[in-house]
Amino acid sequence: MPTYKAPLRDVRFLMNEMFDFQAHFATLSNGALADSDTVDMILEGTADLCENVLAPIYQSGDQEGCHFDNGVVTTPKGYKEAYDQFVQGGWQGLSYPEQYGGQGLPMSLNLVKSEMMGTANWSFTMYPGLSSGCMNTILQYGTEEQKDTYMPKLVEGTWSGTMCLTEPQCGTDLGQVKTRAEPEADGTYKLFGTKIFISAGEHDLAENIIHIVLARLPDAPKGTKGISLFIVPKFIPQADGTIGERNPVTCGSIEHKMGIRASATAVLNFDGAIGYLIGEPNKGLNAMFTFMNTARIGTAVQGIAHAELSYQGSLPYAKERISMRALSGKKDPDKVADAIIHHADVRRLLLTQKAVAEGGRAMIYYAAQLADKMTDGILKGDHAEYEYWDDKLGFYTPILKGFLTEMGLESANLGMQVFGGHGYIKEHGMEQIVRDARISTLYEGTTGIQALDLLGRKVLLGSRGKVVRDFTGDILKFCGRQASHKNMRGFAWDLTKICAQWNTLTLRLMLMARKDRDVVSSASNDYLMYSGYAMMAYFWAQMAAKSFELLEKGGKEQPEFYQAKIQTAEFFFERLLPRAQGHAEAMIKPSKSLMQMDISNFSFDY
Amino acid sequence: MPTYKAPLRDVRFLMNEMFDFQAHFATLSNGALADSDTVDMILEGTADLCENVLAPIYQSGDQEGCHFDNGVVTTPKGYKEAYDQFVQGGWQGLSYPEQYGGQGLPMSLNLVKSEMMGTANWSFTMYPGLSSGCMNTILQYGTEEQKDTYMPKLVEGTWSGTMCLTEPQCGTDLGQVKTRAEPEADGTYKLFGTKIFISAGEHDLAENIIHIVLARLPDAPKGTKGISLFIVPKFIPQADGTIGERNPVTCGSIEHKMGIRASATAVLNFDGAIGYLIGEPNKGLNAMFTFMNTARIGTAVQGIAHAELSYQGSLPYAKERISMRALSGKKDPDKVADAIIHHADVRRLLLTQKAVAEGGRAMIYYAAQLADKMTDGILKGDHAEYEYWDDKLGFYTPILKGFLTEMGLESANLGMQVFGGHGYIKEHGMEQIVRDARISTLYEGTTGIQALDLLGRKVLLGSRGKVVRDFTGDILKFCGRQASHKNMRGFAWDLTKICAQWNTLTLRLMLMARKDRDVVSSASNDYLMYSGYAMMAYFWAQMAAKSFELLEKGGKEQPEFYQAKIQTAEFFFERLLPRAQGHAEAMIKPSKSLMQMDISNFSFDY
Repeated sequence: MPTYKAPLRDVRFLMNEMFDFQAHFATLSNGALADSDTVDMILEGTADLCENVLAPIYQSGDQEGCHFDNGVVTTPKGYKEAYDQFVQGGWQGLSYPEQYGGQGLPMSLNLVKSEMMGTANWSFTMYPGLSSGCMNTILQYGTEEQKDTYMPKLVEGTWSGTMCLTEPQCGTDLGQVKTRAEPEADGTYKLFGTKIFISAGEHDLAENIIHIVLARLPDAPKGTKGISLFIVPKFIPQADGTIGERNPVTCGSIEHKMGIRASATAVLNFDGAIGYLIGEPNKGLNAMFTFMNTARIGTAVQGIAHAELSYQGSLPYAKERISMRALSGKKDPDKVADAIIHHADVRRLLLTQKAVAEGGRAMIYYAAQLADKMTDGILKGDHAEYEYWDDKLGFYTPILKGFLTEMGLESANLGMQVFGGHGYIKEHGMEQIVRDARISTLYEGTTGIQALDLLGRKVLLGSRGKVVRDFTGDILKFCGRQASHKNMRGFAWDLTKICAQWNTLTLRLMLMARKDRDVVSSASNDYLMYSGYAMMAYFWAQMAAKSFELLEKGGKEQPEFYQAKIQTAEFFFERLLPRAQGHAEAMIKPSKSLMQMDISNFSFDY
Repeated sequence: MPTYKAPLRDVRFLMNEMFDFQAHFATLSNGALADSDTVDMILEGTADLCENVLAPIYQSGDQEGCHFDNGVVTTPKGYKEAYDQFVQGGWQGLSYPEQYGGQGLPMSLNLVKSEMMGTANWSFTMYPGLSSGCMNTILQYGTEEQKDTYMPKLVEGTWSGTMCLTEPQCGTDLGQVKTRAEPEADGTYKLFGTKIFISAGEHDLAENIIHIVLARLPDAPKGTKGISLFIVPKFIPQADGTIGERNPVTCGSIEHKMGIRASATAVLNFDGAIGYLIGEPNKGLNAMFTFMNTARIGTAVQGIAHAELSYQGSLPYAKERISMRALSGKKDPDKVADAIIHHADVRRLLLTQKAVAEGGRAMIYYAAQLADKMTDGILKGDHAEYEYWDDKLGFYTPILKGFLTEMGLESANLGMQVFGGHGYIKEHGMEQIVRDARISTLYEGTTGIQALDLLGRKVLLGSRGKVVRDFTGDILKFCGRQASHKNMRGFAWDLTKICAQWNTLTLRLMLMARKDRDVVSSASNDYLMYSGYAMMAYFWAQMAAKSFELLEKGGKEQPEFYQAKIQTAEFFFERLLPRAQGHAEAMIKPSKSLMQMDISNFSFDY
């Protein structure tokens, strides 16, 4: 069973050496608050919370699951106490405005915190995670009164929040939303309808739950242009800030899921529940899109979280378990067999997890800096700056969410594989990671939706390939700088080839799509995965370059740390990056081999 | 929730058109029994058993799981009744000698039967599956007396069997087995030790359980050369064939597993249990190796079983669920959105499952014919013939087991993916398939073990590449025959390139391995997967060729069936076969990028 340990050595490498977060914070309007002492305190405090409070209830929470009894949802043993500690530590307000009781720190620190928390206990971390979605909506679209009413309690964590989008007939296709909001004489609305898959939709952790609900006004146009947003509190807030009347939004049941069993997934029934319009009528879906980037990067974190935890479980096992002799000769001659970490194929399982966890973390941390800059645009009221960075981030988002969650799921499966048959047994804790990881490619937009967003919306339609030209332009500049370092030449050459290929593939798909519209979908998954391998290769090369630089400079404690980074980069380039070639070959095939089969011919037996 | 339907149309295509089983049976000494009426009766009867008895208790068996109470194991509701029907139908004895009450039919029919049964309910099918392992051992190594004592009841199914290999400290590395057998004055033995992961090790389906146990005699040499085989019955058989005294082999607990929860996985304690030596002393492991091919092909079946079931669940869903519009224009204009089967990327999910299920089935059926020929060698007492076909089969075995179970797991995950978030909810039945599929890459030799068996034992050490040269020789002959058919030219050309590459890669690895011993392990997984894609491509091309031939000939009912085969072959060649290139590129890298990292540098935080 993995015993979570916060990977602070790696976190500090990224924050201090790789991406110089102090220099980055200096460019932000709220960056001065994040001096290095404060950041250190946050890292140590988060590690302590994760290792000592959240990790110990990870497995027990899965075993027990959430309880549903006549509309009341009870979280597993210890979750309420852990949440209270989370609230008392002020963790919910880390990156929210001081005006509402938060610490007003840059958003990136929230992401750093949520990766550690999510790795220690993903189910738990979903409760505060959903509150963030709710807070972001209220902060950006709420009136001052709405902010004053809801933000202090949400920032404190004594109230929690949700995002109510999905309905039984629609998830991705929100144009089909049916929940309706009927205007009342007093300017409020009454909501009627059913929402499903509402994470943190009902639970016993907070005294009130604030739902952000997508619904239609009576005169709303059909489809996506007729959706409005409403705040629907479980208990109506009183003028004095306490909770009042119970609103008729009730939990009909909770789902029995494959994993994340300590996270309550509610069916919510709105039977004339009082709601307050937030933002402009019929512009609700646009508002949701505003948060899509940050919400999806929050889910991308799940990929590295499960790769990390799985690695933390399988690494010690691979060192302890002895089986057979290494092919190159006995390694543990005093034992009857060698530890399985001496077998190359077992190392492949381990290093894949390591490369995904650390490479993905680097990608997320970099994206977190972009998110900081974007948020700074909002804080400063500079819409152009906001849009510029949101656009930048928009290219990373589907790659991070789509690629990292797929790789996280693979990593969790490989961690289990290290255990052999023992991995299949619940008590070892490895199969839970696989089950928990499995949701990550499904919610917050399936991998297919990320792929379509990347290739269709961002690359082809949105920029006619410019986003890729820009990104590979950055990579090529990096390669140019590295070409003079003999250690980096191999990496730079591989990356240069990838850049040329990536642009060629993009151009080719653009031309193909003119005549073969379906190619945007038929190529999308391969394009997404190709882009993921390419992007992760760039980040591994950057980490290798930084490690070579620091080793050459000398005077570093623990030079092995940097050596291991370089070796992991080599592993990635030699063993994982080649997969991109399979995707490259498949994506440029016409859509015909997918589209030609008549629906009735998919099976002749059923 | 998938409702299992036996894919008889596809089964008949393979048996009658593709592989001409009647002609094949004519070459076997027991083939005359398998006339086409008998085969038809078996197919219909199996389909009926699967659809109406086994499938209905698949999901409920998972929900309930097995019960353990003080050494007694109770299977889920309905399993005993289903097993009784299985016994009454005479299904256990299908391919076992008439002399012991079986029908004496060729082994391939047993494999056809077990694929259908396994797809309908894998957990259930494991009980009779383990009996087969036990029967095969007794048939080949038992004395006449042992055969007479155990075979009739096992063939009938009123007794069941197990294979007791794994111990807490060893699974793969059976040289570490510690269970000891102490000789008694009467020629029997008393066994002491603990076996784990014993499928069907204890349950309430049969009146007696016959364990085949690996153990050491007091004077046995260390390691693999000191292991003997013993028959250890749960109840000692009486002279009159009834059961007698309870033997002290007891179930200490059953495992709580990720999946196959209706299959009881027992910890068995041998506390002086009476055992009977079977076969020669200290030659137990060799005996086990005899069955490895057939046992592993039995597990390979699990790959296609789960791909098939997952497809049966996701295909109807993809036709019903409506979301968004197809990129090439509205397909269901009268609805608010198009069925998701109109999206190319959803078709990719579906066609991958279909290509794996049907392509894998073809591979298994072909291997089943080899197994028939091998078994015929045993039946005729012709050891040379037995060895010839066992050797042939030995090349297929690790590819089928390793590749098909990996692809089956991927397929199960893709089937779940078709459902979006709904796939994660237990009631839809898709996540159970993923959990059940997950064991298949772990037991009966992990994928890593299959990979090492293929590259190390079969290809390099065992034949210096000859097995690949032989197999690709067959493919090239096929390509030569097809080159004149214009429809087949593309397939033939792709296969020709693959054959050249496969041999080149093999040669290159052979040369590399002389200096870099670890390369046999470092390249093994990529080599296995490459071989799997190559082999499956050959079988898809054969099915396409047969379909073209039959379509040209004309007069076939349901020509769409053959059209769909050709289209699925095109899908496989265009969308899945390219993955082989990623594996080709990765496998030829020196082992250094896997082996160079010092064990202590895998992590600096834990």
